[in-house]
Amino acid sequence: MLEVKVISALWLIGILAEAMTGALAAGKKQMDLFGVVIIGCVTAIGGGTLRDMLLGNYPIIWIENAHYLLAIAAASLLTVMIAPLMRYLSRLFLAIDAVGLAVFSIVGAQKTLMLGYSAEIAIVMGVVTGVFGGVIRDILCNQVPLIFKKELYALVALLTATLYVLMKFNGVVEWLSLSTAVLFGFCFRMLAIRYQWSMPKFDYQYQSDSSH
Amino acid sequence: MLEVKVISALWLIGILAEAMTGALAAGKKQMDLFGVVIIGCVTAIGGGTLRDMLLGNYPIIWIENAHYLLAIAAASLLTVMIAPLMRYLSRLFLAIDAVGLAVFSIVGAQKTLMLGYSAEIAIVMGVVTGVFGGVIRDILCNQVPLIFKKELYALVALLTATLYVLMKFNGVVEWLSLSTAVLFGFCFRMLAIRYQWSMPKFDYQYQSDSSH
Amino acid sequence: MLEVKVISALWLIGILAEAMTGALAAGKKQMDLFGVVIIGCVTAIGGGTLRDMLLGNYPIIWIENAHYLLAIAAASLLTVMIAPLMRYLSRLFLAIDAVGLAVFSIVGAQKTLMLGYSAEIAIVMGVVTGVFGGVIRDILCNQVPLIFKKELYALVALLTATLYVLMKFNGVVEWLSLSTAVLFGFCFRMLAIRYQWSMPKFDYQYQSDSSH
Repeated sequence: MLEVKVISALWLIGILAEAMTGALAAGKKQMDLFGVVIIGCVTAIGGGTLRDMLLGNYPIIWIENAHYLLAIAAASLLTVMIAPLMRYLSRLFLAIDAVGLAVFSIVGAQKTLMLGYSAEIAIVMGVVTGVFGGVIRDILCNQVPLIFKKELYALVALLTATLYVLMKFNGVVEWLSLSTAVLFGFCFRMLAIRYQWSMPKFDYQYQSDSSH
Repeated sequence: MLEVKVISALWLIGILAEAMTGALAAGKKQMDLFGVVIIGCVTAIGGGTLRDMLLGNYPIIWIENAHYLLAIAAASLLTVMIAPLMRYLSRLFLAIDAVGLAVFSIVGAQKTLMLGYSAEIAIVMGVVTGVFGGVIRDILCNQVPLIFKKELYALVALLTATLYVLMKFNGVVEWLSLSTAVLFGFCFRMLAIRYQWSMPKFDYQYQSDSSH
Repeated sequence: MLEVKVISALWLIGILAEAMTGALAAGKKQMDLFGVVIIGCVTAIGGGTLRDMLLGNYPIIWIENAHYLLAIAAASLLTVMIAPLMRYLSRLFLAIDAVGLAVFSIVGAQKTLMLGYSAEIAIVMGVVTGVFGGVIRDILCNQVPLIFKKELYALVALLTATLYVLMKFNGVVEWLSLSTAVLFGFCFRMLAIRYQWSMPKFDYQYQSDSSH
């Protein structure tokens, strides 16, 4: 079961990378260390937690195994210590974050399929797992979620989850589906950053006084 | 079961109207098309989803039947295309939104009663179903939820759900309860917009340094 | 079972104090009376509700017993009426809020232990119960949650819950664990306000264009 170990390792790396994005976002709002840890935790586990709450899939993994929270809290505090180095590490950091995005989307879809849901819902839950940690982070930091405005973040989650589900439904062996989808998601995200790919924006500025 | 078909049709219309309000709100924040679709979905299904999560009522309807999400996504993208027409359609749009508000509140109360909860909780869940989609939309768009400040939106949900529950508890036949409550909620909302009815506001500007 | 009655009474006092902080926050945003009641309710029951949703612990207490919601709504509206007096009562109010914080944290941890979860998760759920009502209040009022920035609020919840759980795991009788933890949490919070204790802040202003 090498592929299980590899995907678990990548998942853990992704969670820690997400915790670090949360800690940095908290630092931009000058939060205290407790705030940094909470935002780090919510960013790292928020997407998977929301998925499990939507599916009614209890117990949630970090509640069964509290070690994850300790690791995430440690990664958040570590971020505070190495923050002055972050500008030199930012390229590495973006790469780790891209791995996390791909793995979260795949694991989210995979778990949903295992619970017996349809391919469509597995893809939706891949997106929820991949991007909603960052959405909750941005809400707690009181800003419009970045993923709705910046480069192809959510689309990477959607296509990566879709690719994985399609291969799975067509009988591709698990290790091949996993590695292809991780590689695809990672490369797609890195190319989107490199070439600043983005989706068309919808700009609607007509102000009606009585519409909600 | 004509009344079931009528209420289902109105519910679907309401969901699509809610999706459109979400898409327009996303456009006001210049989100990309993916953001538009996500905000559209969350607005349309957020209230009912929160209700089911609060009640522990699984599986949630759109997870069992992914067609709803596709219809909502389509309505969100359609909104982008017809946005230039929205100013001419705004009156029609407000009317459709009012139908949606009434139907959501009634359906929310109805489902809660069917699950065996008390009349009070059915009314609360009617309000949750009717208004929290819009609340989540406004949070994601980083603004104070409009329903807490503007015309009688939440009060329409409260009174419509109360009226339906009262008729139900007094033995009124279902089709009569449904149609009376829909008509009441629709007219009340349209009158509130027309005459700018609003509730008294609470303005508290004393700033204490150490209160939360 | 005197200690059960005392802790229930303190819990109710805490809930009403939380409702009042919610109502005041709504007033600072000039919400209408319905908004005041909703923010009051969400602040008072949000932390416990989130805890139960994370644990999958249904039915949630206020859904089983709707009287709580009525009491909370009444406390919210009462706050509007006595708002002009709040500046004279602010010291009393902070004290009541401190009682609430301590009791929420303890009750959150206690309930989680009763459901069979580990000590670590009980402490985490103590923090969730103690502080997330205020976090949701601040999100709905569109501001960065205060507890991430101001005096030791979340740390009080963490240490109070930890103290209670430690005593419990070391065989201390319930009434002694409860009263010691309440007293500790209350005094710690009051001292933190009095001497403006706070945690170190993380200030990270480096702006990367492509990091999330």
